[in-house]
Amino acid sequence: MKSLESYQSCVNDALVARLQQKNFDEPAGLYEPCKYILQNGGKRVRASLVLLASKMFSGSFEKALSVALAFETFHNFTLIHDDIMDKASIRRGIPTVHIKWDENTAILSGDAVMIIAYRFFEEAGENVMKLFPLLNKTALEVCEGQQYDIDLEKAALQDALVTESVYLKMIELKTSVLLAACLKAGSIVGGANEVDAQKMYEIGRLLGVAFQLQDDVLDTYGNEKTFGKKIGGDIRVNKKTYLLIKALETLQGEDKKQLSSLMSETAGNENDKFNAVVSLYNKADVKGQTVALIKEYFVKAKTLVDEIAVPETQKQELRLFMDELLNREY
Amino acid sequence: MKSLESYQSCVNDALVARLQQKNFDEPAGLYEPCKYILQNGGKRVRASLVLLASKMFSGSFEKALSVALAFETFHNFTLIHDDIMDKASIRRGIPTVHIKWDENTAILSGDAVMIIAYRFFEEAGENVMKLFPLLNKTALEVCEGQQYDIDLEKAALQDALVTESVYLKMIELKTSVLLAACLKAGSIVGGANEVDAQKMYEIGRLLGVAFQLQDDVLDTYGNEKTFGKKIGGDIRVNKKTYLLIKALETLQGEDKKQLSSLMSETAGNENDKFNAVVSLYNKADVKGQTVALIKEYFVKAKTLVDEIAVPETQKQELRLFMDELLNREY
Repeated sequence: MKSLESYQSCVNDALVARLQQKNFDEPAGLYEPCKYILQNGGKRVRASLVLLASKMFSGSFEKALSVALAFETFHNFTLIHDDIMDKASIRRGIPTVHIKWDENTAILSGDAVMIIAYRFFEEAGENVMKLFPLLNKTALEVCEGQQYDIDLEKAALQDALVTESVYLKMIELKTSVLLAACLKAGSIVGGANEVDAQKMYEIGRLLGVAFQLQDDVLDTYGNEKTFGKKIGGDIRVNKKTYLLIKALETLQGEDKKQLSSLMSETAGNENDKFNAVVSLYNKADVKGQTVALIKEYFVKAKTLVDEIAVPETQKQELRLFMDELLNREY
Repeated sequence: MKSLESYQSCVNDALVARLQQKNFDEPAGLYEPCKYILQNGGKRVRASLVLLASKMFSGSFEKALSVALAFETFHNFTLIHDDIMDKASIRRGIPTVHIKWDENTAILSGDAVMIIAYRFFEEAGENVMKLFPLLNKTALEVCEGQQYDIDLEKAALQDALVTESVYLKMIELKTSVLLAACLKAGSIVGGANEVDAQKMYEIGRLLGVAFQLQDDVLDTYGNEKTFGKKIGGDIRVNKKTYLLIKALETLQGEDKKQLSSLMSETAGNENDKFNAVVSLYNKADVKGQTVALIKEYFVKAKTLVDEIAVPETQKQELRLFMDELLNREY
C-alpha cells in the first residue's frame, strides 16, 4: 500500500526501540519468538491506520504512536495463534513460530505478545480510559470471528450455518472490526468528536469487508502476476468463500448439485475442477454480484468520508488509501 | 481455605451473573469452553485475596469486585493454556478444555478468557489507570514463570540452569506475583497508600513462594489422607522440585551421583526409588532446610503485616489466612 508506506518504517523503528527499551530479554525462550514475529515486518496496516486517522484530525504523531503499536502488536498475537490453528507453516516468507520453535512456544509467546500489546497501550495516557473498552471489545470480536471461521470450515456445504450472512459476519469480525477500531482509535487520539470517530469506525468496517471480498474474487479471477500467488487456491482446497456460498445460493437443481459435489472433491484433476467450478460461478454471475457488493461498500465508505467534518486536504491520505484498495489487483 | 470461604460464593455468583449479562453466547464454540472453566469453581483464592485486601483498608466490596473478577479470570486463562502445554487431562476433577474439546478450541477460548479478564477490569472505574500497569506487568511475569518452568523441566539435571535461585525465580513468577498483585490491587482499591500497598504485595509474594515450597515438601513428606493425592508423585516423574535441587546442591560425590541417576530413571520399582531418594533427601536434610526457608518467609510476611497502618482488628482475616497456610497439611 503506497499510501501507507510513509508510516511503515516509523512503526518498525518504534517497535524495535520499545522492545529493546522494555527489557523483553529473559527468558529468551519466551521473548525471542515475540521479537521474531513483531520485528519481521508485515505491511503495518493497522498501526498505519491509527496514525493516518490521528493525523487527519490534526492529532500529534507521538500520542498516536503507542496506540498504533498496541493495535499492531495485538494483530501479531492473533497471527501466532491462528497459524497454529490453521497449521500454517509460512508467514511473511519465513517459518511460522510453531514451526520454527514448537506449539507450546507459540501458545505461550502468543499470550505474551497479547500482553505486550496492552503494555504498549499503557502509554496512551489520558486516552487509555477512552480506548480501553474499544480495544477489549474488538479483541474479543476477533476471537469470535476466528471461531466462526473454524465453524464454517468444519461445516458441510449443506449445513444451515453456511450462508452469506454468516460468512459476512465472519469476515467482519475476523478482519474488519480491527481495521475499524484502528481508524476510530486514531480519530479519538487525534481529537475527533464521537460522531466523526464512529463514522471512521464504519469506514474501516466497510473497507475491511470489501477487502476480504476482493481477496475472494482475486483468488479465482485475478491475474497471477499481479496477485502474487497461484490463482485457484481457494477452489483447490474447497474453501468456503463468498463466491462459493453466493453461487450455491444462486444456482438451482443440477448446477447446485454439481457445484456441491465438485467442491467436496479432494482428488481429481485440478485444472478440470477449476474450469468446471468457474463455469458454474459464471453461470451464477458470482463475480458480477460480488464486485457489485464491493462497490456498494466503497460508495458507502466514500459518502462517510465526505461527511466527516475536517478540511478536504486532511482527507487526502484516506482517499488515496481507499482508491488504492478499490483498484488493487493483488 | 476456611478463611476465604466467605468470599467464594460471592465470587461464583458475580462471575455467573456477569457472564450472563454480557451476552457471551455466540459463537457457542468459543464461549462454552470459557464458561466451562470460569464457572467450574476452584477455590477462588485470587479473587478472595483482592476482596480481603480491599476490606482490610475499609474499601467497598462492590468496587473491589470487578478487580477481583479480573484477576480470577486471568488466572483461569493461564490454566487453560498451561493444561495444553503440560498435557494435563484433569483439572478440578473434570476433563481439561483441550481434552473435552480440542487443542484449537483451548487455544482460542483461552485467548478469549484473557480478554474477558480485561473486559471485567474495565469496570474498575477510576482504579483502571492505577491498576492497569500492575495487571499487565504481572500477566507478563506469569508467562515468564511458565517459560522458566518449561526450561527447567527440559533441562538435564546437570544443566547450569538447574539451581536454587532459578527455581525460586520460577515459582515466584509463575505463582507468587499474581497473589502479590491481588493483595496490592485490593489494597489500592481499598484506599491504601503506596507504602502499605507495596507491603501487601511483598506479603503476597512471600506467601506464594512459601506455599509452593510447602507443596514440594508435602508431595514427598505429606500424609496421603490430608494431602489428598498420592505421596511421591514428584519423585516418580523426576520432577525438579526444590527438594531435589537443594539435595543436589548439598550432597557430594557418590550420594550426588546416585541421586542424579535415580532421578533420571524412567523405569524400575517405584517404591524402591521413592525410598532411596527419600533416604538421600534425609541425608541432605532437605526437609529441614526447606521448612526453615518456609518459616523465614512466614516470619518476614508477619513482620510486614505488623507494620501495616490499619487497626489490628482489620488485620484478623489476613492473619487467619496466613495461619491456615502455615499449618496446612494439604
